[in-house]
Amino acid sequence: MSSYFQDIPPIRFAGAASEDPLSFRHYDADRLVLGRRMADHLRFAVCYWHSFCWTGLDPFGGGTFERPWFEGAAPMVLAERKAQAAFDFFERLGAPYYCFHDRDVAPEGATPRESHENFLRMVDVLGEHQQRTGMKLLWGTANLFSHRRFMSGAATNPDPRIFELAALQVRDALDATLRLGGENYVLWGGREGYETLLNTRVGQELDQFARFLHLVVEYKHRIGFTGTLLIEPKPREPSKHQYDFDTATVYGFLARHGLDKEIKVNIEANHATLSGHSFEHEIATAAALGILGSIDMNRGDPQLGWDTDQFPNNVPELALALYHILQAGGLGTGGLNFDAKVRRQSIDAADLFHGHIGGMDACARALLVAEKMITDGRLQAALAQRYAGWDSARGQAILGGQLTLADLADAVLQHNTDTAPVSGRQEYLENLVNRFCEP
Amino acid sequence: MSSYFQDIPPIRFAGAASEDPLSFRHYDADRLVLGRRMADHLRFAVCYWHSFCWTGLDPFGGGTFERPWFEGAAPMVLAERKAQAAFDFFERLGAPYYCFHDRDVAPEGATPRESHENFLRMVDVLGEHQQRTGMKLLWGTANLFSHRRFMSGAATNPDPRIFELAALQVRDALDATLRLGGENYVLWGGREGYETLLNTRVGQELDQFARFLHLVVEYKHRIGFTGTLLIEPKPREPSKHQYDFDTATVYGFLARHGLDKEIKVNIEANHATLSGHSFEHEIATAAALGILGSIDMNRGDPQLGWDTDQFPNNVPELALALYHILQAGGLGTGGLNFDAKVRRQSIDAADLFHGHIGGMDACARALLVAEKMITDGRLQAALAQRYAGWDSARGQAILGGQLTLADLADAVLQHNTDTAPVSGRQEYLENLVNRFCEP
Amino acid sequence: MSSYFQDIPPIRFAGAASEDPLSFRHYDADRLVLGRRMADHLRFAVCYWHSFCWTGLDPFGGGTFERPWFEGAAPMVLAERKAQAAFDFFERLGAPYYCFHDRDVAPEGATPRESHENFLRMVDVLGEHQQRTGMKLLWGTANLFSHRRFMSGAATNPDPRIFELAALQVRDALDATLRLGGENYVLWGGREGYETLLNTRVGQELDQFARFLHLVVEYKHRIGFTGTLLIEPKPREPSKHQYDFDTATVYGFLARHGLDKEIKVNIEANHATLSGHSFEHEIATAAALGILGSIDMNRGDPQLGWDTDQFPNNVPELALALYHILQAGGLGTGGLNFDAKVRRQSIDAADLFHGHIGGMDACARALLVAEKMITDGRLQAALAQRYAGWDSARGQAILGGQLTLADLADAVLQHNTDTAPVSGRQEYLENLVNRFCEP
Amino acid sequence: MSSYFQDIPPIRFAGAASEDPLSFRHYDADRLVLGRRMADHLRFAVCYWHSFCWTGLDPFGGGTFERPWFEGAAPMVLAERKAQAAFDFFERLGAPYYCFHDRDVAPEGATPRESHENFLRMVDVLGEHQQRTGMKLLWGTANLFSHRRFMSGAATNPDPRIFELAALQVRDALDATLRLGGENYVLWGGREGYETLLNTRVGQELDQFARFLHLVVEYKHRIGFTGTLLIEPKPREPSKHQYDFDTATVYGFLARHGLDKEIKVNIEANHATLSGHSFEHEIATAAALGILGSIDMNRGDPQLGWDTDQFPNNVPELALALYHILQAGGLGTGGLNFDAKVRRQSIDAADLFHGHIGGMDACARALLVAEKMITDGRLQAALAQRYAGWDSARGQAILGGQLTLADLADAVLQHNTDTAPVSGRQEYLENLVNRFCEP
Repeated sequence: MSSYFQDIPPIRFAGAASEDPLSFRHYDADRLVLGRRMADHLRFAVCYWHSFCWTGLDPFGGGTFERPWFEGAAPMVLAERKAQAAFDFFERLGAPYYCFHDRDVAPEGATPRESHENFLRMVDVLGEHQQRTGMKLLWGTANLFSHRRFMSGAATNPDPRIFELAALQVRDALDATLRLGGENYVLWGGREGYETLLNTRVGQELDQFARFLHLVVEYKHRIGFTGTLLIEPKPREPSKHQYDFDTATVYGFLARHGLDKEIKVNIEANHATLSGHSFEHEIATAAALGILGSIDMNRGDPQLGWDTDQFPNNVPELALALYHILQAGGLGTGGLNFDAKVRRQSIDAADLFHGHIGGMDACARALLVAEKMITDGRLQAALAQRYAGWDSARGQAILGGQLTLADLADAVLQHNTDTAPVSGRQEYLENLVNRFCEP
Repeated sequence: MSSYFQDIPPIRFAGAASEDPLSFRHYDADRLVLGRRMADHLRFAVCYWHSFCWTGLDPFGGGTFERPWFEGAAPMVLAERKAQAAFDFFERLGAPYYCFHDRDVAPEGATPRESHENFLRMVDVLGEHQQRTGMKLLWGTANLFSHRRFMSGAATNPDPRIFELAALQVRDALDATLRLGGENYVLWGGREGYETLLNTRVGQELDQFARFLHLVVEYKHRIGFTGTLLIEPKPREPSKHQYDFDTATVYGFLARHGLDKEIKVNIEANHATLSGHSFEHEIATAAALGILGSIDMNRGDPQLGWDTDQFPNNVPELALALYHILQAGGLGTGGLNFDAKVRRQSIDAADLFHGHIGGMDACARALLVAEKMITDGRLQAALAQRYAGWDSARGQAILGGQLTLADLADAVLQHNTDTAPVSGRQEYLENLVNRFCEP
Repeated sequence: MSSYFQDIPPIRFAGAASEDPLSFRHYDADRLVLGRRMADHLRFAVCYWHSFCWTGLDPFGGGTFERPWFEGAAPMVLAERKAQAAFDFFERLGAPYYCFHDRDVAPEGATPRESHENFLRMVDVLGEHQQRTGMKLLWGTANLFSHRRFMSGAATNPDPRIFELAALQVRDALDATLRLGGENYVLWGGREGYETLLNTRVGQELDQFARFLHLVVEYKHRIGFTGTLLIEPKPREPSKHQYDFDTATVYGFLARHGLDKEIKVNIEANHATLSGHSFEHEIATAAALGILGSIDMNRGDPQLGWDTDQFPNNVPELALALYHILQAGGLGTGGLNFDAKVRRQSIDAADLFHGHIGGMDACARALLVAEKMITDGRLQAALAQRYAGWDSARGQAILGGQLTLADLADAVLQHNTDTAPVSGRQEYLENLVNRFCEP
Repeated sequence: MSSYFQDIPPIRFAGAASEDPLSFRHYDADRLVLGRRMADHLRFAVCYWHSFCWTGLDPFGGGTFERPWFEGAAPMVLAERKAQAAFDFFERLGAPYYCFHDRDVAPEGATPRESHENFLRMVDVLGEHQQRTGMKLLWGTANLFSHRRFMSGAATNPDPRIFELAALQVRDALDATLRLGGENYVLWGGREGYETLLNTRVGQELDQFARFLHLVVEYKHRIGFTGTLLIEPKPREPSKHQYDFDTATVYGFLARHGLDKEIKVNIEANHATLSGHSFEHEIATAAALGILGSIDMNRGDPQLGWDTDQFPNNVPELALALYHILQAGGLGTGGLNFDAKVRRQSIDAADLFHGHIGGMDACARALLVAEKMITDGRLQAALAQRYAGWDSARGQAILGGQLTLADLADAVLQHNTDTAPVSGRQEYLENLVNRFCEP
């Protein structure tokens, strides 16, 4: 059988001067950046769902993509064709990782057992493809939001029988992730939230959710899965409100339920902006709270109020994100998963490549900018100078709790002098960043 | 000296048929609602800053209000005239509480000590007015955001000397709140955040903030202040990002620093909507997390991206907010503070009354709606039915942690049956609420 | 064959005291309001697409509704079952009008001709149902956005062959609307816009769109269709930008192309808010520009950035909208079409009724409020007083163009007096409106 | 008297390798780009208001800047000091143009005549500075929004006496612009809108506004001012709604009142984004409608709902804006006015330079990117290919109006073939743009 991607050559690094749109101009896997291979910093993953499952459907129109694995055979046969096409794509692109939901790779069956068996069979198929190609699994996950049974949530469903059905899917997806050598496991709760408070007990649902996570943590340890558990924050969509609103909210939930040492966050750029934050804010917050796990790399549209999941392409913005990741010591077991899809009008096989190539090259350039930001040292020096007062004996005594409010208040009255503010130098610092964005 | 409000009669409850715009048509302080006086449910407060300090200035124009206490005398004389006018207003309106920042009531002096002394003197004046009129203080607070010294934050300032200056103000404001019988003390951190991450150490600033709060908690207990400490969440404005983004974020911060039993939240309607939440969401979340403290009652404009602080007037929306407050057992030491201002074009003395009367009547009507929602019982019955499965032995066993993920997964495979979803009945429930909004 | 709605009795007006959720408590079709029947003011229509075609699918999940006309037979058989169910619903509900897209009522065929013939056949079926039931058609329209051929627009497609395919659909839909006695014809251009300017010639596409509308206008007159042509503004979704952004934009486009006497607007509440306007703003603007045509009645969610198409339920907000409609002299051939859908979790047959009943009752109450706003007269009197200066000889001379800029400037210098501003009285006016919202 | 900016050397082009933050690294005035000097493409202007009048005040705090011309002398003396400082800044920076409001340069007096005379005197002073330094005036304007008399609008005020007071200011500002050789005159209507429809007659106010503009047009011609009249769109802030919402709205207003040949638009980046559009959308729309006039160059913050007026710094975004300007044939008499301010914490004299240098360098780099986009030709070729069908005889016949709707519909039925859609190639085109963003 001929490949859907047969006209696409393997994508190679060809240097910045390349005029071949099907080459990398910046992503040079083996290039050393701050002492590590570019590939090891970026750990790119391709996602199964957007590139191989989505038909181009949107709320106002049907599918536009006509992939040969969408119809024309029995569901399991199509699932195998899809896997064949996906790994063919992965190999030609040359990204080292991929990610999937259980239902992306295997069809829902007529009964829970049939779904379970479909999935087990496809995990075998994926394992063979991994062996053959050397592709690795960045993370696995379970789709607990598409089927109508989950319309009112999975772990937070008002009906415990739905909670149990979700438990089966997560158990199987964790088993599969372990078996396929996955390095993380992600939970995204698109329906773990509410449409209206009128039919919702928030406190009860949060308790259910915490219980579910405790079950997952316990199971992970029992089976010896050493990867990282990740929650992916998103404020809304599909639900009116999702409990995992943003990084700070997830942290509070984890801390309340004693889970903050067990679970980290998978931050998505477009989810960050939908929650009213910049992408780098979410990264810096997760780093400060010790729960930075992995990244869903994409971009939103600043004029649109929903998750557009576009490929990232703004290098100055990406550089700030990567700077904060590098400052935090990198992503550990995490990576950059392109939770991104080509536009609905980009119906050609080549478009899938253009999207990923553009994203990988933009991230590679941004990594090089971030490297300069760090090696140059001026940004860090400006911060050190700005906070220098806290390094003084007095500053340390305050932070260390050796002085009371009354001590401080009385001291001010005694000295009776004001303190002049100092420029924040924002424009200077922004210019410096822009300077690093240049070649 | 004649009163600025001399043409305004004391505002009385005159019944729903009243055509006098300077009367209450619904706010009947002594009417019993669910067994308590309306006044004791609502605990209305008037804020000093919007009604007596704001000149009508906005970012594109100067003051429009020409109050006699704005200019024409020495600052302390004007402060006394302002206090006179404020209590005159309070008395005519008949709301039982007020709230203030230190700098609302006393002018900044040339030195820290002069500011301190100005404030102490004015606290005496306020005390006398309280005694004379019977007005009570719902809460006090310190303004740590208007003076240029706080341009980069107060507790989170990069310079510890600013932290110390803030400590003096908070110490004095806590002392004053205690002395004036205040029932709560509020911290709003308008500048506790950042303009750009490029000049900000988020982790360090959060630690500073936690230290500051620990100092405040310790001092509160030391002086015997038994009121509630409250943080007021707001996502942004004036800062690009504020650390107290919303209720869930504040909870996570408090939990991380062992402060979640000491500090609650003061939820503002307009801050809720700016953070991407409904007002009732923030209330329900705070209730679920056990940190519901008090309310800044106002409304925003759904088309505007800043804090418009308008008087509340949409009864169906207010009813949902009050329903969640009643469900949570009320506000305890908290109340409904009108953090609301008349529009910049509403320059007449009477406009200040129309704003407050409209707000109080709208809240009174909403309280009566919420009472019906509760006494009718159908809303709660629908919830009980929806979650009934969790009351079963199986549901309780799951929630109680007696079953593992594997237990649940295996049970599903064994029974091998799916569970059909049940209607969420949102439209029916919304119609029911609307039914209660009618007379 | 038993009816899907067999358990639902015909919905009757039962008065405000009714506790039957399947009755109208306020919508009393024959009640006179300002001298006209309530039904003749409101002219309610039910839309075909949301209630009978939508499966509950959203971008993150499949269908949740399991209607008997969704599958299990040939497409044309299902189309007939759907029509049967729709008219059954219409009859039980008692709204006088309905609306449809061509593809709602008849399936796309394998060729343009087959689609054309399917549609003609179903128009016969609809005609028979109309005859049998007395239902009337408020407006017809063509779906030029769901099929993949329209992914880059219909009239504004870069390929003129798509423009021609669109012409066929609109011709047929106009013919059908005429034949079924439709009172208006609507054009909504969900794909008439762009995803990226990089592949778009804005000027060219606007010219294509204008040409298309001229063809439609010419055809309308040729066939003797005397109903109103309407454009429905929406700023975005599905497109990143839609040319019919809002009422003012549509007006400018119509004026530029000489179409402003031929085409009016169909204003949707949720589209108004997505474009950054209040619903009443769009109505007042259309009225001021002379292009107010009809209303798509629904509501959005202020926290969500997409078209949620919920049933309207906030009476104070609806009252302002209806007030502006009444002030503009009503909607003429237009009406209130519920472009609204029950939530995805509202899967029962009864939920469709609760949605519509709640919407109709809320509009009925709002109409009664608007009636009071008008008959009371105080709102209009306040406006007359506010603008009285423009009625003076001087005001009229200025407006009439009898004075130049220099005349006015010189006069000011000569008199050399300033003018004091006057209170806008917003809070007083808002309280007045709230007063009318009460019984 | 020593200069406030005495420590700042004149800013020179020093090349991309310069590490001097007080030099241009890209803005090389005489470098040829597409055959014109860089300076002649960009025509940079510095605005008077943000850099010399704003004190750092925001809605939550007082001034932070302590400029020597803010206090300590009589208003007219301070105005002269301010002018001295401004021109000192202009000279050191080396931008060729500046812009001002009447009230920026001269203080409001006690009477209209005194204000008028203050302004005339300061226009003399500005003229002398221009002569001395060679600085040119890009545009003048009148401030009709800051004084309390304009709180309810200027041209759209309910009181015609305010309209007359506005006429004086505009007459004087037009005279001054002519006298100072200004190349454009701008009208920004921050208060020409409403706070609530309850106290507003939209139709009447739009008629007033049109009358005002007709007076201005007539006066412009009478005095022989050959510069361009410009309206600056903004959707809201300070008003709840402003009539000049966006470019398309302004076009419709101008067309309705026969002003579309007399007035163009001054597009501000941050106003574009506040209105729900991208900056390049507004430029492309104005170009398509023939009303592209000038640019207020700045950037907003995507997380903030108000006008932050930051200096532009994102080169890829600016490149798209400049590409559309170049495609439209440039700005004619317009230019790039930095309607931008340093952050409130940027209190040093040097910060004013960093802001402008960063903005000028970013625009210069973006211009070079746009040049590459044009000279490369691939972007335009892709467009030509995409729309090629419209160049065919059939396409031209459709556009030319030679075929009716029925002709097109019948032809489709006769051929009875569908048309397959073609990829929009968005990712490929975006990658191409990113390729041009590199050195």
